[in-house]
Amino acid sequence: MEGLKLITAIKSKTIINVGEAAIGGDEIAIMAGPCAVESREQLFTTAFALKELGVKILRGGAYKPRTSPYSFSGLGEAGLELLQEVSRATGMAIITEVMDPNEVGVVAEYADILQIGSRNMQNFPLLQAVGKLNKPVVLKRGLAATIAEWLFAAEYILAGGNGQVILCERGIRTFETYTRNTVDLSAVPIVKSLTNLPVIVDPSHATGLKELVAPVSKGAVAMGADGLLIEVHSQPEEALCDGEQSLTPAEFAKLKAELSPICLAVGRKL
Amino acid sequence: MEGLKLITAIKSKTIINVGEAAIGGDEIAIMAGPCAVESREQLFTTAFALKELGVKILRGGAYKPRTSPYSFSGLGEAGLELLQEVSRATGMAIITEVMDPNEVGVVAEYADILQIGSRNMQNFPLLQAVGKLNKPVVLKRGLAATIAEWLFAAEYILAGGNGQVILCERGIRTFETYTRNTVDLSAVPIVKSLTNLPVIVDPSHATGLKELVAPVSKGAVAMGADGLLIEVHSQPEEALCDGEQSLTPAEFAKLKAELSPICLAVGRKL
Amino acid sequence: MEGLKLITAIKSKTIINVGEAAIGGDEIAIMAGPCAVESREQLFTTAFALKELGVKILRGGAYKPRTSPYSFSGLGEAGLELLQEVSRATGMAIITEVMDPNEVGVVAEYADILQIGSRNMQNFPLLQAVGKLNKPVVLKRGLAATIAEWLFAAEYILAGGNGQVILCERGIRTFETYTRNTVDLSAVPIVKSLTNLPVIVDPSHATGLKELVAPVSKGAVAMGADGLLIEVHSQPEEALCDGEQSLTPAEFAKLKAELSPICLAVGRKL
Amino acid sequence: MEGLKLITAIKSKTIINVGEAAIGGDEIAIMAGPCAVESREQLFTTAFALKELGVKILRGGAYKPRTSPYSFSGLGEAGLELLQEVSRATGMAIITEVMDPNEVGVVAEYADILQIGSRNMQNFPLLQAVGKLNKPVVLKRGLAATIAEWLFAAEYILAGGNGQVILCERGIRTFETYTRNTVDLSAVPIVKSLTNLPVIVDPSHATGLKELVAPVSKGAVAMGADGLLIEVHSQPEEALCDGEQSLTPAEFAKLKAELSPICLAVGRKL
Repeated sequence: MEGLKLITAIKSKTIINVGEAAIGGDEIAIMAGPCAVESREQLFTTAFALKELGVKILRGGAYKPRTSPYSFSGLGEAGLELLQEVSRATGMAIITEVMDPNEVGVVAEYADILQIGSRNMQNFPLLQAVGKLNKPVVLKRGLAATIAEWLFAAEYILAGGNGQVILCERGIRTFETYTRNTVDLSAVPIVKSLTNLPVIVDPSHATGLKELVAPVSKGAVAMGADGLLIEVHSQPEEALCDGEQSLTPAEFAKLKAELSPICLAVGRKL
Repeated sequence: MEGLKLITAIKSKTIINVGEAAIGGDEIAIMAGPCAVESREQLFTTAFALKELGVKILRGGAYKPRTSPYSFSGLGEAGLELLQEVSRATGMAIITEVMDPNEVGVVAEYADILQIGSRNMQNFPLLQAVGKLNKPVVLKRGLAATIAEWLFAAEYILAGGNGQVILCERGIRTFETYTRNTVDLSAVPIVKSLTNLPVIVDPSHATGLKELVAPVSKGAVAMGADGLLIEVHSQPEEALCDGEQSLTPAEFAKLKAELSPICLAVGRKL
Repeated sequence: MEGLKLITAIKSKTIINVGEAAIGGDEIAIMAGPCAVESREQLFTTAFALKELGVKILRGGAYKPRTSPYSFSGLGEAGLELLQEVSRATGMAIITEVMDPNEVGVVAEYADILQIGSRNMQNFPLLQAVGKLNKPVVLKRGLAATIAEWLFAAEYILAGGNGQVILCERGIRTFETYTRNTVDLSAVPIVKSLTNLPVIVDPSHATGLKELVAPVSKGAVAMGADGLLIEVHSQPEEALCDGEQSLTPAEFAKLKAELSPICLAVGRKL
Repeated sequence: MEGLKLITAIKSKTIINVGEAAIGGDEIAIMAGPCAVESREQLFTTAFALKELGVKILRGGAYKPRTSPYSFSGLGEAGLELLQEVSRATGMAIITEVMDPNEVGVVAEYADILQIGSRNMQNFPLLQAVGKLNKPVVLKRGLAATIAEWLFAAEYILAGGNGQVILCERGIRTFETYTRNTVDLSAVPIVKSLTNLPVIVDPSHATGLKELVAPVSKGAVAMGADGLLIEVHSQPEEALCDGEQSLTPAEFAKLKAELSPICLAVGRKL
């Protein structure tokens, strides 16, 4: 990959510890939760259900990037406070998205892992801002980003001094319309061979269809992914966004049971 | 999938028996061999090595679709004769590509399974010709074909009376240039849910890179694929086409060993 | 373009004469007519209206490639006979599609120009069959074909001895869903710079929307296209296929009037 | 376009006045200049040459979004100062890119038009920041953005109270590799029909090849574009970025001469 310097390609394996989880080690890291933090009740119900099911990292958006300015765009700092509260109550670590360089500070106060969404993969001021943190960052691949561009984006964070980058494949844009995006699972072994960074997959956004979350999760783990980012909502039919791709806690439990033998088959734990 | 009649969607599972193999049953069907039949020695060396490794279906092209009219385009009927000869010597079943409605008859005489390549997925006279056979047909997805169009192409064969259709995902065209194509593994569970037909994956053509054949094979099986179509050549560095994506028999043996636990994990055999 | 031999790149300009038209000369060649030959009345009404408007080449499909085996697929040889009949009555030359190497002979008997559709751009036996003719061939670009692959496909025809190839850009597949396809008009000057062949554009199939036929036609001519392939139907709302992209003869007359100043601006005639 | 409110679709035509230019009126607006402000000499030489050729709006980047953190990323505020200085010397208006919500204020102090680049089309905090300005904004289409998403992004700016939005088509990502991107010229008439906003085209970034700048410019104007954004550099072979797509002032003069008759043909002036 011409022009890519070696910061992303250091050969010692990166393992990122956060709360009770370690990302990039033997255990497959599961980050699960609702697309958006909607209310105290929704968040706590979902979080406790996931805690029961062994999930160590809770996802939930307080700042939501939305195509339309008229869509629900998250609770903002009030959402961050709810996330912190549920984290204290459950002991789960929190991952949440940051969209604005000006909000990196406040998000970093509340969250354990910051997420850079696909639309912001080449938001260079934002990458530079999280590059100054000493906190893990999940960097999602852009919808039309080549693997080379994705790694260069990671390099912005690493060059800033923050080596705790987790790459996340979440589907690319193609002509296929059956799924929301086309998940490029071959990116997982490619990125694993080119870098020392953990790689996770987001089957919920990659497909947009809840019935594909389980098979894509299995494929991802079989191909070497270090973790999964999965949308789970206590009442998907009432979700303010992305309900059609959210699992219920019961469906998530079923997925975990199905995934377990694949993890064992590739020498990993769940 | 609007307008798709129900021939492809009959709910009883299709199992296709060919030689010692059954495609669509518990066992993952492996079709392996060189991209092209190049010579008696190359074919026999490769075939016997694969036979030793338990492969029941041998692939090899006698008629090769080539982008340039100046590239090697296969040995034609002489290649078919070699395939038949090696089939008799090894007991392996033969899969080979047919490109011309006029050659369907002769190919069907020599081969056990006919392959329709991605460039011909919507070659309707060819689909109609193989629809009149009583032989299995592997139908590869076109490089820019939606899943709906692929199933409609299958329906051309089924509507002709030939129910032995095996669908093969082999990568679609996207902006990504690291791999030759982008393998759409989510198509596997989608097609399994919409039809009763076996689905296989061709990791060699989908990626164009030999180091990705093993991880894509694992992902495919984990996601429900019924088989794999893999390029193996006794001397990839001397192959007349696609050498850079061909495994040696030794590499194929390694792949099989790695694949075996995944098969078990999803309740399949290898 | 590595590996591309020079048959397509001969520097003397190719002008193809057919009936009263010359394709590749100063005059912009217009090929217009219905998607499919549906009936004697439909064809004659449309053809006479177009003849009145100065059109010299009539398009109309007798063999229609259709995604679904259950869609109307053309009148076959009866359609060819109607085309020949209307040609005699109007003096217009005929362009029609051929899909099967076995039908090249019969289509060549009736038609003045044979069309290879986008799905068949890499149907090599078909390309070889028309390569043996001494008749003009319109070669449409495949939906996912690179420019290099398109020129190699032309080379199959040229290598067979038939130098009368007309290249036709008709849209490629992208993620955009507003239009049926994305017309790649930059392909026009690229192909003009790499080959000596005439290049035309099909705005009807490229966009799938009748309101875009006029602007795309203007852009094509401004960028150096030698002709246009346009769907016109006497009663689009009753067309058996592609009615939503067909112009009425009155709309076509309006397009011609708008196009005329653009032709003059680039030193061409209409 | 479901869910799109009507702010972008107000039917009275928007004409945006800036310096001596009016964008969206009869005259085709030309914005030309170097990719990046590199030095006082480079900027002044290019600007005066363009001024001589009748250009009223000068482009030049002070903040450059670059794939790699190790590439030249612009002179920053020093570049803005040079742009202001050359503006005072020549009377030309200035367009320059802004990437960071924190820099909107400073860029707006120096520039007449702010540009949002394709990577930032869905950088919502940035869109909201420029939405509060009373200055024109050029909004480039994202590399994988649908037309609907592009218009929703415009709506973010309009909803903030800034109605001076100019849409810019600059190529989308496809599988074609001959050009850097595939310019979607059909987007021009589509967007003109859906909104009241001026639309311009960037042929330099859309193709990445200087020899395609003239034909794409002609096509754009023929299809209704209100302006062009063109890279011109006094010495392209020494440019710090994008030299291979930059015209010299002499080549730009030739383009203008060729473009003039097309403008007249569509009732516009140059």
